[in-house]
Amino acid sequence: MKIISGGVCAAKGYKANGIHCGIRHNRTKRDIALIYSEVPATAAAVYTTNLVKGAPLTVTKKHIENGIAQAVICNSGNANTCNANGVEIAEKMSELIAKELSIKADDIVVASTGVIGQPLNIEPIAKGIPELAKGLSIDGSLLAAEGIMTTDVAVKEVAVEFTIGGKTCHIGGIAKGSGMIHPNMATMLVFITSDVKISAEMLQKALSSDIQNTFNMISVDGDTSTNDMVVVLANGMAGNTEITCEGEDFTEFMKALNTVNVTLCRSIAGDGEGATKLLECAVENAKDLQTAKTVAKSVICSSLTKAAMFGADANWGRVLCAIGYSGAQVDVNKIDVAFKSNKGTIEVCKNGAGVDFSEEKAKEILLEKEIVIAVNLNDGEYSSKAWGCDLTYDYVKINGDYRT
Amino acid sequence: MKIISGGVCAAKGYKANGIHCGIRHNRTKRDIALIYSEVPATAAAVYTTNLVKGAPLTVTKKHIENGIAQAVICNSGNANTCNANGVEIAEKMSELIAKELSIKADDIVVASTGVIGQPLNIEPIAKGIPELAKGLSIDGSLLAAEGIMTTDVAVKEVAVEFTIGGKTCHIGGIAKGSGMIHPNMATMLVFITSDVKISAEMLQKALSSDIQNTFNMISVDGDTSTNDMVVVLANGMAGNTEITCEGEDFTEFMKALNTVNVTLCRSIAGDGEGATKLLECAVENAKDLQTAKTVAKSVICSSLTKAAMFGADANWGRVLCAIGYSGAQVDVNKIDVAFKSNKGTIEVCKNGAGVDFSEEKAKEILLEKEIVIAVNLNDGEYSSKAWGCDLTYDYVKINGDYRT
Repeated sequence: MKIISGGVCAAKGYKANGIHCGIRHNRTKRDIALIYSEVPATAAAVYTTNLVKGAPLTVTKKHIENGIAQAVICNSGNANTCNANGVEIAEKMSELIAKELSIKADDIVVASTGVIGQPLNIEPIAKGIPELAKGLSIDGSLLAAEGIMTTDVAVKEVAVEFTIGGKTCHIGGIAKGSGMIHPNMATMLVFITSDVKISAEMLQKALSSDIQNTFNMISVDGDTSTNDMVVVLANGMAGNTEITCEGEDFTEFMKALNTVNVTLCRSIAGDGEGATKLLECAVENAKDLQTAKTVAKSVICSSLTKAAMFGADANWGRVLCAIGYSGAQVDVNKIDVAFKSNKGTIEVCKNGAGVDFSEEKAKEILLEKEIVIAVNLNDGEYSSKAWGCDLTYDYVKINGDYRT
Repeated sequence: MKIISGGVCAAKGYKANGIHCGIRHNRTKRDIALIYSEVPATAAAVYTTNLVKGAPLTVTKKHIENGIAQAVICNSGNANTCNANGVEIAEKMSELIAKELSIKADDIVVASTGVIGQPLNIEPIAKGIPELAKGLSIDGSLLAAEGIMTTDVAVKEVAVEFTIGGKTCHIGGIAKGSGMIHPNMATMLVFITSDVKISAEMLQKALSSDIQNTFNMISVDGDTSTNDMVVVLANGMAGNTEITCEGEDFTEFMKALNTVNVTLCRSIAGDGEGATKLLECAVENAKDLQTAKTVAKSVICSSLTKAAMFGADANWGRVLCAIGYSGAQVDVNKIDVAFKSNKGTIEVCKNGAGVDFSEEKAKEILLEKEIVIAVNLNDGEYSSKAWGCDLTYDYVKINGDYRT
């Protein structure tokens, strides 16, 4: 398997585009994205567990109930959530783009991201759709990735190439991250395309299983979004024998999907609102998987730990504290904690108590852009990773006045 | 019942003091506090549910197992937590102060607050104890309140006067708040004194019941501290007939205790680390009490809502979002949201969707120092309140480099 360029257009038969249509006032920001498959694809998705759900989720759910989709349309700048006419607008978006592409409206995945509770005007979308469709291209992944960005600073795009039964296959994805990121049994806005031939059932199985260790293990701010979804399309154009059950081919597909998802997770976490650092909490030797996951996620979510990391302060007591209130049953007196980065590793806590360490060395390690908080529970053989970011002045700035 | 001055010395028979003994480098900051009752008092306490527990908690628990205490000693600047010799140091603190006051070591409540994981040196404490004890005075509550402060900006002190069976009674308290505040079945550092005569059993009952609606309903940053405790002493010097069961007298006592605790809660929340505003989420018409509490707490804990309040931005979509992911089963389409302050009330969401409102008026309301986020679930008759604060640049600043 190798990482390649091309994002959602790396797989055969996909085109994408992103333009500014006028939902946002800022004309330099793309605000609508389109991904299109030449042929209908099998589709699978997972959604937010927030009871307040964006209207596009309701519509997308209905559209891909039959396991088939051919295009994804997503706007930024407005979440189309908590509006009286939200479903109507989301249906209208589907109809307009379906007509333009001459495909079926119920083969459209529709998504929105942005401010909650402000009516979404269909006019700029309707006006922009011809240009959006006309500009579809195999080089358009980056434009689409830009079109779904909200407060994201970096574009989130990845693709991999691998083989199944001698056939060259691809999976690629784009993601929107940044704020209101705390997936819970679902995830944020991620669109993944593949040319693998796989049944809708196995595609859903692959996605639902993988997100447990990827998108469900990231948090930027503890707020589970109303509009989270991850959608995978697989159009079968790689020409492999269709994957209809578990086995070698499915395993290969899962591996490639996991690589794509972990890469996007790290991109989302590292580009969390205001973030200056990507944080990874790597928990080892837990007595069971749930304990490992609960501990990793609790540390990643701790505001105090996040603020300490921003300040490159080796305040490991806050890591212990977050483990202690996580709800996981752990033996505190067995816990070791170390901080790691490109500059090395420093052990700061052994058996639940502090050890002497060089503050100077710790500072050097923590000033890096990617930090691993390594927690050894010394209590079993399960491990888990969670990803997040530091808490910074800019997070407050961005969110202190997001709407204006 | 009336609010009076005097804090923990408002009740008969109590003296207090707070001095700088040398745990902190900054000589202008008091770092040790003492509260003393002339006679042994009944005692009750609740503690953090964090599995990582400060050594002082272990010692205090043991000391007041018999329901009796006569003094509280508490240092700031060091939490005496995650240290190999923590229990030994906490015991030593008890012994030294007991000897100085000629009372029993196991009648001492011992507490610590500050950095986790750094050994607590007994020397400055031992050296300071004679001065600390000598300075005990009925005017000493404020000094004690200062002695337990960490990053607190404001001193937290309150007292009330009321009558039970014709006898004048008092309850007073001091608290330490600010950071790592997210009580969970327990609370933060609060010391309460009373001259009411009440059995240890009924005192515990009163405290355990009241905190469910007071200290368990505040959050500054979502981090449940390792050293939380609330301790109440009641020395019986008011001369009332001992309260040994429920009834009118117990109800009066509960009312006074609740007033003290709500006041301290609001002080703690409003003085959260870096806070510029006190936030109250008042939930009404829930189908049951747990739903009301879960919703109130979720809104108060939402980083995005807190940041919006800092920016005086009426971004009510974030309130809906936090209700939606709270875990409570609510009917989103019934929810109304309004913002209130001294400047008036503005309705921003009706039946789960936005209503037209004046952004100017909203701004005027949200620029005040105390904001109520009023949530009407329109689904029953239960209500609850939770308290918190906004998320600000200063929270990040304070916690980006807390140790140095």
